[in-house]
Order: sequence, then structure tokens, then C-alpha cells
Amino acid sequence: MLLSSLREQVLRANQEIARRGLAPHTFGNASGIDREGARPLVVIKPSGVDYASLTAADMVVTDLEGNIVEGSLRPSSDLDTHTLLYREFPQIGGIVHTHSEFATAWAQAGRPIPCLGTTHADYFHGAVPVTEPLTAEEVASGYVRNTGAVIVRRFWSENLDPGAVPGVLVAGHAPFAWGRSPDEAVEHADVLEYIARLAYHSVLLGASESGIPSHVLEHHYLRKHGPKATYGQPSKARH
Amino acid sequence: MLLSSLREQVLRANQEIARRGLAPHTFGNASGIDREGARPLVVIKPSGVDYASLTAADMVVTDLEGNIVEGSLRPSSDLDTHTLLYREFPQIGGIVHTHSEFATAWAQAGRPIPCLGTTHADYFHGAVPVTEPLTAEEVASGYVRNTGAVIVRRFWSENLDPGAVPGVLVAGHAPFAWGRSPDEAVEHADVLEYIARLAYHSVLLGASESGIPSHVLEHHYLRKHGPKATYGQPSKARH
Amino acid sequence: MLLSSLREQVLRANQEIARRGLAPHTFGNASGIDREGARPLVVIKPSGVDYASLTAADMVVTDLEGNIVEGSLRPSSDLDTHTLLYREFPQIGGIVHTHSEFATAWAQAGRPIPCLGTTHADYFHGAVPVTEPLTAEEVASGYVRNTGAVIVRRFWSENLDPGAVPGVLVAGHAPFAWGRSPDEAVEHADVLEYIARLAYHSVLLGASESGIPSHVLEHHYLRKHGPKATYGQPSKARH
Amino acid sequence: MLLSSLREQVLRANQEIARRGLAPHTFGNASGIDREGARPLVVIKPSGVDYASLTAADMVVTDLEGNIVEGSLRPSSDLDTHTLLYREFPQIGGIVHTHSEFATAWAQAGRPIPCLGTTHADYFHGAVPVTEPLTAEEVASGYVRNTGAVIVRRFWSENLDPGAVPGVLVAGHAPFAWGRSPDEAVEHADVLEYIARLAYHSVLLGASESGIPSHVLEHHYLRKHGPKATYGQPSKARH
Repeated sequence: MLLSSLREQVLRANQEIARRGLAPHTFGNASGIDREGARPLVVIKPSGVDYASLTAADMVVTDLEGNIVEGSLRPSSDLDTHTLLYREFPQIGGIVHTHSEFATAWAQAGRPIPCLGTTHADYFHGAVPVTEPLTAEEVASGYVRNTGAVIVRRFWSENLDPGAVPGVLVAGHAPFAWGRSPDEAVEHADVLEYIARLAYHSVLLGASESGIPSHVLEHHYLRKHGPKATYGQPSKARH
Repeated sequence: MLLSSLREQVLRANQEIARRGLAPHTFGNASGIDREGARPLVVIKPSGVDYASLTAADMVVTDLEGNIVEGSLRPSSDLDTHTLLYREFPQIGGIVHTHSEFATAWAQAGRPIPCLGTTHADYFHGAVPVTEPLTAEEVASGYVRNTGAVIVRRFWSENLDPGAVPGVLVAGHAPFAWGRSPDEAVEHADVLEYIARLAYHSVLLGASESGIPSHVLEHHYLRKHGPKATYGQPSKARH
Repeated sequence: MLLSSLREQVLRANQEIARRGLAPHTFGNASGIDREGARPLVVIKPSGVDYASLTAADMVVTDLEGNIVEGSLRPSSDLDTHTLLYREFPQIGGIVHTHSEFATAWAQAGRPIPCLGTTHADYFHGAVPVTEPLTAEEVASGYVRNTGAVIVRRFWSENLDPGAVPGVLVAGHAPFAWGRSPDEAVEHADVLEYIARLAYHSVLLGASESGIPSHVLEHHYLRKHGPKATYGQPSKARH
Repeated sequence: MLLSSLREQVLRANQEIARRGLAPHTFGNASGIDREGARPLVVIKPSGVDYASLTAADMVVTDLEGNIVEGSLRPSSDLDTHTLLYREFPQIGGIVHTHSEFATAWAQAGRPIPCLGTTHADYFHGAVPVTEPLTAEEVASGYVRNTGAVIVRRFWSENLDPGAVPGVLVAGHAPFAWGRSPDEAVEHADVLEYIARLAYHSVLLGASESGIPSHVLEHHYLRKHGPKATYGQPSKARH
């Protein structure tokens, strides 16, 4: 993949965050990774720049440790979360962080989003997990990197597959979503907001937190993702 | 009815789903049926294609058993639900499936939508029913067809008239609505979302689940639908 | 006032209902009255016609008893409510009926909207009242006229001034709002929806139903409406 | 600062109130202050004029006591609140008053908005405070000025810094927000509405009112505001 193409994809993903209303102001950012070269390169939004004025040339390029390779602007202040996730989740190619309304509300309430229906099961194989709050020590010793660390810890402690659960809620903060590309990451961030919204209304109507039966969850998830996927057109990527 | 005309109607109904915001992404689909020929023909949206790029030529034509008669794309993955409903409900000419926000929340909560006001009573003769969840056996032996089967079972078990109750909630999934044409089906899907929204707010304000008195329900429903309908202009279709 | 001018005002009020999202589909209607002639004339929207295609020439003109004076279309099915309100409330010049989302939810819950803040107090002198449900006899003997009758009964029984409380909720149905003109009626219908929305959220946050202290209510209402009104520009109508 | 420039800024801030949907109708107003001259000058929106037709020339200029220096229109009826806040909070350069939906709901419920997440902590150093209701005497003896007085009293009694807590809820009324300029004030009014919305949903999901741990609050607030701020580009204003 050409770096210029990845810059364009990351720009577009950042613009989609704004266009879909997933992050007011400059809350939110998207990145992508090129893992094909000898040294993997991360492309990320610069910090605190309005979505409306962003260009592909504004994007900042770093290595997997966050060292700047190209770009004159300061990278997103969330860079260290992105690079840690790229190091730990080798199957992902793009990450999107938003402060979208309902996903953030679940994060602020510190509750995982239960899988209450097939809209959810089509994209997330089970509940959307929520991290532990960061300890005072974790905040002091590297807040942004440790935001990534609590995400990874949640996935490993619950034995979750980041390919099957493409997003998470950081307690008291907001969601992160990812995918095989920046485009897919922003789609997952958008779906995550919609299922957060559906689950919110459902829970206020008294939905059981236990969620849909596992046979429905398995069927729906595998309908779109398994080797026997029946959704979409054969020539298209299935997700 | 010419098949080309039905293709156009089904295309328009699918576009209306998107335009009215009833289904994010490619959740949702519309179909229509031509019952006039020797062999009834169903026209349905192809699977997983963006609403924005749909054309009438993309529509898939099948018979009532779901065998493809025309079209090179794979039909909507919900086809077997549609064909079963067309076989069991001979009075309907169009079906719309959405994942609209509030109707889906009621479906996820597994609750019927009580008839709490005249907005509801103008279109639905009583509560909007909710199906039973599908059993593991039903999921395994034909998930999509059995989604239709649990809908039909709910209607027959409660002695409901699909002409007077033009929609249903599938538990843990989302709504289906129908009408005499694809246009009317999409109108009913839109009204269903609105009454789901009204009922949601009303219930959170403490509305009694018993709903409006039956004399008001009967009056409103018959005002629009009975032989003495007084709503709309005499030369227009009454619905 | 020229009747042609009133037709234009009523057309515009009906279009505003749609533009402000106060009534989906063809729910909702606006009317105005010319009380200056020997015989007062009511101008009202025809029944079941889309807002998008309405013209001033489509408006139906009736007398205060609902007899058609001009117009070839059937008048709004709610005509008898409008004419009764014009007969009983001589100070009003326009009426707007909507099924707007939050006002309708309060109506469906059968609850008056308490005055919880100054947004409310600037327009409504106290709670927005809710009617009794219509009895079976009232429905059978003239449903639409009796919808007006239960409104009037609520005002007289609570000694309310229709000039100071420019709207009402019909239980299990939806709101009616009014004003000195069709323009003001639609503004009041819009404000009513907004205060219904504010009160809904406030009540879910635990606001006391007793509402703001009467000294604040009096001050705010009189700031805009009393002889010493201080709001707006001196040359403008104060409301 | 030229007065003509401040007029333009205040015009733009008022237009932003409307564009962002923070105040329906003519609820809401923005002002700015020029403290550089011998006599500080306040520029404020005229009362009850539609946002759509406002021009820079319509703005009213007063001194810090509210005496009109320039302008033929009557100033906003909330002028005395603005001038009192400018007198008491010397660090602020712009004030925005709205009736935005969720912030107003918290104000109507008489509850402070707890700091439940980092979206909040990035802008407000702790809960958004709510005033006491005005007493009958305060209403009678200068309602608008005393609205400012109860705000200031809340800040002094809780030892709050208006630079670190750039907004407040007036009980039973609505929010006021401020900043170093009219532009920043409107940004804070918009963020205040968003955090009000997030907190509303979070609380209905059962979020603890105690809010995020203080080490996270401190970290996030200082990330944007302290001497070691790491957010945004070095050449830009940090806020």
C-alpha cells in the first residue's frame, strides 16, 4: 500500500467522523497502519485541528513506537493508545476514537453494552466490553499509553478476539473502534453508536441484560463473518 | 401490473427506507409482489448493496418459493421471510423490513407496543404484536423462513388480521411492516417507528399499558379504514 | 382582513407545521378565523392532503357552524373541534393541531405539563392542562365536536384563560395550540413541543412536579405579556 | 480591540447560537466586552430580534452599569445579568445565554451536572454548578441583576474559579456560559449542552453521581489548560 493512499484513507475516515456526527468539536480521531514495509508506519490525525480544514498533507506519520517519521504538526494526543493497539492487535488496520453520544454514555456509566439484538450480533460477537477505570498510578505514569493498556487487558482477561469484537468502551471516557482498514474502523464506530443507542432505549424499556439467546447470536454473527457467510454479494468483502 | 413498474416501486420503497432514516447502513429491505399473473412474482432488493447506488435493474425477481426468475445479484438475505409472509397473508402487496431506532428497541425489549393514542389507532387496530424468540431448533433449521413462521404464528394465535395490524416486532431483532403496495408498506414502517417513539416516551412518563379505551380505538381505526371512513378526500385511497 | 390574506396565512401555518417537524404524514392542521365580517369565516386545511402540495386555493372556508362557504375539497376531519374552540374562545384568531413528539407523549400519558422553568413561563401562565378522556357516549355522539367540548370543559372547570394558556393536551390524543393569529398559533405549537421536551427530560432527572415558585412564574409571564412588558422592541407586538 | 470588531464577534456568536440549535425562537443571547479603553464597553444583542435578521449595526453598546452608549434598539432583557458577571468575573470577555435542551433540563431539575467523563473534564474543572432559586424578594427587587447575583454567590460560596468552570445553570431557568471571547463563550455553551446530554443518558443508565476519579479529572483538565498542556498545536490558543 502506498503511504499516500493511506493518508487519503485516514483523512477520509476523520472526515467521516465529523460527517456522521460521531464527535463534536475536535473530539475524536482516526488512524491507519501500513504493515507491509520493513517498518510498519502509522498515519494519524494531527491534534486539535478542525475536521473541516484537514488535508491529507496534515496527517502525521509515525512508527509503531510513536516516533514521528513525516509531518510538521503535533500528532493526535491519543497517539500512544493507537500505537499500543496496533502492536497488540496485529489483525487491525485502522482505529477510530469518538465521543459519540450513546456509546460515551455507556462508557461514563461504566457498563458493557449487552447484545440485545441482531443489529448488534451482526457486528459484535457478544457484549461490547468496558475497561476498568485507570488507577492514579496509571494516569501518572503514561495516561494515553495506559488507556491502550486497560483496553488490551480487558480483551486478554476475557479472552476476547479483537477481530470479532471490533470496539471497546474506556470507562469514564469514550469508545474506540477498529477494523481491517480505516474505512471499516469508522463503519464500526458508527455501528457501535447505533447499537449503543438501541441498547439504551431497550434497557429503559426493561430489556433483560442477559441479551439474545446464544444460538441467535452465533447464527447472526456467522451469517456475516464465518466461512459460510450468506450476506452481501459474493464478489464483495464480507464484514 | 407490469413487472417494470413493480421494480420501480420496490426501488423507490428501498430508497425511502434510507431517506427517512429507518435503517442505517444496509440494514433493511423492501419488496413487492405481482399476484396478477399465473405465477406470482416477488421483486426484492439485492443483499448488502448500498441504497445510494441501487437501480431498478438491480432488483431480484423470484417466485413465491424464492426461486430466482430474473436478476444476477443475490437477493436480500431476508428473502425467505418475505416469501413466507406473501404466501400466508394474501392481502398484502409489499413488505418493508427496517432496524428503525425505537421500533427495534421495543423488539429488543420483547414488548408489544401498546396502543396509547390516536396516532397509533389511526393505523394499527390494537397493540403492535411481538413474536416469541426463535428456538435453537428454529434457528438451525431455517432461520430466515422461521422468522416468517414466528410472525405468522403470532398472528394466528392472537387471531390478528394482517390487514388491520400492518406490522410486527420480531423479538430480539427488529420490525417488519406491510401494506397493499410497497409504497404503503414503507409508510406503515415509518408510522410504526413514530408510534414506537411516542409510546416509548409515554411509558417513561408512566402511561398505563392498558392503552386508550376501546371506544376511542374503534372510532379512530374505523374513521380511516371502515366502510364509513371520513378521513381524506373521497376520490383518494383511504388508509 | 381580506379572506385571500387569511387563506395565505393559514396555508403558511400549515406549511410551518411540516417544516418544523411538528406532525409527520398528514397528522396536523391549522386554521384561522376572520371575525370582522357579519358572519365570521373559518379557513382550514383540507383533509388528508400532503403539506407539500397544498395551495391557498385548496383551503376550505366555512362558517362558525362548519357549513362550507367556499372550497371543493373536504375540510380537515378535525373541523368541528376548531369551530367549537372559535365559538367558545372569542379572543383567539388561529388554531394549530399537531401530533408533535413530546407534547403527544404527555397527552398519551394523560399528564399535564408542569411549569418547571422560565422557558415555559414566558409563554404559558401555569401548567399545560390535559383533558379528561372522552367517554364512550361522547365518542359516539360527535367525537370531533366533543374533543372541543372536553377542552373547553377543562378550561372552565379550572378557570383558565385561553389567552394566557394558549394550548392544551387532549388525553390519549395530541396537543392543540392557539393564538391571536394563525402565525402565533403555530409559534405556540412549536414552543409547546419544546417545553414538553424540556419537561420530559427534567422529570426523568427528578424535577419536582410542583414547578417553579409562583413569584418566578408571575414575573416571567408578565415580563412578556403584562402591561409593563419589558421584552422585545417597543414597536413590535409583544407575545 | 476596535469596537467594530467586537460588534462583529458578538453578531457571529449570536448567529452561532441559532446555527447550533442552542436556543429556539429568540431565547438566548451573546455579548462581549472591550476592557481595554478607559471605560469598558459591553456589546450585546438587542431584545427579541430574530437571529436571521440581526446585523452588526443592531448590536447595542453599553457601559458596565448598563447605560446605553450606542444603539437605537432596546438591549437584551438579560443585560443586567451580563454586566454583573463582567463586573465580578474580570477574566471573562464574552457571555452566552441559551435555553439549550439538556442543560436547561438539568437547570429545571435543580441539579448540578456531575463530571462523569473526560469530555466534561476537558472543559470544566468539576461539576457544572447550579444556583439557588431566586427568592420572592430577589425577583421583586431586580430579577435580572439578581440572576447574576445568585450565579456569583454560587461561585464564591463554593470557591469556584470562573476561568476553570466556564458556565453555570440557573435553577428553574437555563444555562449561562462564558469565555475569554464571545467565540469561546459560544464554544463553551455548545460543549455544556453536549456534556449535559451525555450526563443525562449516563445517569439514566445508573452512572454514579460521584463522577470520575479526581486523578483523571485533574489529568484531563490540565492536559488542555495547565502550563504543561499537550493538546492542540503549539502555535494555537489552548482551550
